[in-house]
Amino acid sequence: SRSFSGTHFTVRPPPRRPVRWAIRAIGINPEIRKAEEKVVDSVAVSELAKPVTPYCRCWRSGTFPLCDGSHMKHNKATGDNVGPLLLKK
Amino acid sequence: SRSFSGTHFTVRPPPRRPVRWAIRAIGINPEIRKAEEKVVDSVAVSELAKPVTPYCRCWRSGTFPLCDGSHMKHNKATGDNVGPLLLKK
Ligand code: FES
Ligand code: FES
Repeated sequence: SRSFSGTHFTVRPPPRRPVRWAIRAIGINPEIRKAEEKVVDSVAVSELAKPVTPYCRCWRSGTFPLCDGSHMKHNKATGDNVGPLLLKK
Repeated sequence: SRSFSGTHFTVRPPPRRPVRWAIRAIGINPEIRKAEEKVVDSVAVSELAKPVTPYCRCWRSGTFPLCDGSHMKHNKATGDNVGPLLLKK
């Protein structure tokens, strides 16, 4: 740290507090069903109504566990490349 | 900023450079098929072999698009609560 000295004085600012860095992995699901310890969903595939049903893997869908297209906004905002799982009858 | 003053001197450290903060959303898929613009997978549900087949939604599986249980390590490391989609015949 800097010091300022003269004949009769020394002024020394207190040492700076060191900046502490941490690298930590962060979660991928900010909002969906956070009261659940683990969000697992089941699909009875014999009951699928449509030829193709997209299921969300981006954790941003307003209709989770179904995909509502929100992965597009997520990808654009972050540079990510995630997309749904398509269940085909 | 601090200053130290006496009869014949003033010592003033230069102003600290401001710390710049940025809040930015980050992606959820660090590794899987990053050469693809969007990772979409299809399952022909009539061809499922087992009564229950788990599909990954955590983007950490070594057998993606299938779940290999890696969501457990991810949840433990991050405090997240994600889990697979179970396809049931
Ligand atoms: S909205 Fe999440 S994958 Fe489409
Ligand atoms: S390994 Fe990704 S959900 Fe299980």
